[in-house]
Amino acid sequence: MLDWSVEDTAYMAEAIQLAKQGLYTTAPNPRVGCILVKAGEVVGRGFHYRAGEGHAEVNALKQAGEAARGATAYVTLEPCSHYGRTPPCAEGLINAGVARVVSAMQDPNPKVAGRGIKMLQQAGIECSAGLLGKQAAELNPGFIKRMETGLPWVRVKLAMSLDGRTAMNSGESQWITGGAARGDVQRLRARSSAIVTGIGSIQIDDSSLTVRETELGLDNAIDIVKQQPLRVVLDNSGKMGPDAKILQQPGRTLWVTQGERDMPHADVLTAQQCDSQIDLQWLLRHLAESEQCNEVLVEAGATLAGAFVEAGLVDELVVYMAPTILGSNARALLQLPLDKMDQKLRLSMTDCRQLGDDLRLTYSFLDRASSSCNTSQNNAVNEVSV
Amino acid sequence: MLDWSVEDTAYMAEAIQLAKQGLYTTAPNPRVGCILVKAGEVVGRGFHYRAGEGHAEVNALKQAGEAARGATAYVTLEPCSHYGRTPPCAEGLINAGVARVVSAMQDPNPKVAGRGIKMLQQAGIECSAGLLGKQAAELNPGFIKRMETGLPWVRVKLAMSLDGRTAMNSGESQWITGGAARGDVQRLRARSSAIVTGIGSIQIDDSSLTVRETELGLDNAIDIVKQQPLRVVLDNSGKMGPDAKILQQPGRTLWVTQGERDMPHADVLTAQQCDSQIDLQWLLRHLAESEQCNEVLVEAGATLAGAFVEAGLVDELVVYMAPTILGSNARALLQLPLDKMDQKLRLSMTDCRQLGDDLRLTYSFLDRASSSCNTSQNNAVNEVSV
Repeated sequence: MLDWSVEDTAYMAEAIQLAKQGLYTTAPNPRVGCILVKAGEVVGRGFHYRAGEGHAEVNALKQAGEAARGATAYVTLEPCSHYGRTPPCAEGLINAGVARVVSAMQDPNPKVAGRGIKMLQQAGIECSAGLLGKQAAELNPGFIKRMETGLPWVRVKLAMSLDGRTAMNSGESQWITGGAARGDVQRLRARSSAIVTGIGSIQIDDSSLTVRETELGLDNAIDIVKQQPLRVVLDNSGKMGPDAKILQQPGRTLWVTQGERDMPHADVLTAQQCDSQIDLQWLLRHLAESEQCNEVLVEAGATLAGAFVEAGLVDELVVYMAPTILGSNARALLQLPLDKMDQKLRLSMTDCRQLGDDLRLTYSFLDRASSSCNTSQNNAVNEVSV
Repeated sequence: MLDWSVEDTAYMAEAIQLAKQGLYTTAPNPRVGCILVKAGEVVGRGFHYRAGEGHAEVNALKQAGEAARGATAYVTLEPCSHYGRTPPCAEGLINAGVARVVSAMQDPNPKVAGRGIKMLQQAGIECSAGLLGKQAAELNPGFIKRMETGLPWVRVKLAMSLDGRTAMNSGESQWITGGAARGDVQRLRARSSAIVTGIGSIQIDDSSLTVRETELGLDNAIDIVKQQPLRVVLDNSGKMGPDAKILQQPGRTLWVTQGERDMPHADVLTAQQCDSQIDLQWLLRHLAESEQCNEVLVEAGATLAGAFVEAGLVDELVVYMAPTILGSNARALLQLPLDKMDQKLRLSMTDCRQLGDDLRLTYSFLDRASSSCNTSQNNAVNEVSV
């Protein structure tokens, strides 16, 4: 479709910017922005802020009032067609008398998937979809992947020295990266629905894995910390003690272990096994289906992070690189033994920026080693709740 | 001195740009640019291109002719006061009737070191020095360091995967980085007076270590390849065979080994020892004093590169990082065994840029491990030839 004007593009770009205001708060819903324009003037702006509250279109319509009649709506995601916690937005746009709806992309939610646009068209509204679709999709990597595959978007965070090391051989470790990088990790946590770690990190660092208001550097930090991401501890042999710091934090902790056990202040999940380890693909499917997790952040040591990479389950690698050399005896970035050059994993750098003295490098995977356990392969997504 | 105008600064900036035209050809001389300005008009531009040919000031004066009388000269380095292969530039400026000379920095050459400016002042010329001094110094890190310390500027080039690895454990290796990065290495070689490697690289890769006209991507490539940097092979136990490819290349090869040996097509240097290894500090001093090397590029494996780093002899680290993961069994970036976190080396990133799919990261060292061999400590620099 090439029937969009420069003005259309500019309004959609603004709608995408608006959507970002929900970056840290909409989960499990998608981030969506909406602009209403009549006679060359913006008459309404809206974005979705929090599940259960108004959708972007509803907020924009409210602002526009009567001015919505005959207007064009620019929406970063196809207006929904189903009754969820709020009535369908397509219906709202029809009732308000909007004349034209431009969507950046179809809703990947199988409950919508074109039905919203069809509903609008049947009401005589001119519809088009796909304007700045790639940019709009980047707002919601997790929501889209969950709707399309039943798995969350998996981001692995690593902090290393220039020579790819994370700690001394003795295990001696300390903050490798600086304050700006650590603040950035807080924001990575905040946009995630769950944070996955291994028992090693709990035993060695006694990590809390919380989002902390003062470290976020965001205006709406107070709202963000109210929705702590689910903390997931992989502990196949059940080593976590009840005094672990992670159990004393606000929000939920999910303890994934074998057999039937109890843990105060934690939900317990009995782990499906794969080669005597927790089946990571099964875990991710559980997080998507039962916990509605869109984006999952893996903050773990070399063994667990390496296992996610080896299983081909990682969508994005975020590497914080400090300007230091820890030397050849120090610990490897990922426990990932490869023997031959043709086994190397090829990545594609999608972003590079400086944070204080450190670099933040973001990569997607071009090759994917594939998981050997396929016990939980079930790509049919019949029931997704949004 | 704050008596420079915006115009002064702009002219000096242009002179610095001019000097860069000699980046690959002036060694062992410094890169220098000169602009002559009269009544707000540039009347002469010059830069030094090649040792034995005209200095920057002489070239600018030639272009200006009679217009030089009463002009201001902007020079990136203090005009020389001594007779070398050409007469002193200070004299040339005096004879041409220049009224004012602005230098970016004093000449670090002890034969000049303020004498050029003094000569000009005695002739009644208004002089000032220090304008854009830092930027001008960056033109000549090697020349300045050699003049001030008797050692060359040492740059270590490394190519690695994202996880800090250079080859598989088996030794299996291949180009890790892409074509753009390899072209950049050619330019690093071209600006260097010498390239230092170890016998390992010769035995495994049979490297040539030449600058190749077609890979430089520079207009004056044909001139550059005529002055191949000195190739230095560190081979303490004398393992190099007479059929090594490096010996068949244009330009000189220096074979550094023990005792009195012969090698066809190579100059032989008997190595001073330090803990049964070649004394690297002695080697660098030799390259500065006997070979007039300004910038030395170390292109070696993890052992030799690690030894240079460990001895605290490295000024700059240039790391080409490919978007791949070679895994935890693969070979380390630097053979540099450190045990405790407080031994870590701290660097400062001075540049970061993308070359094709790779990143080029440039670092200077904040900490320096210090060399344990001090047998060749001799900081007196009495005789330097330029």
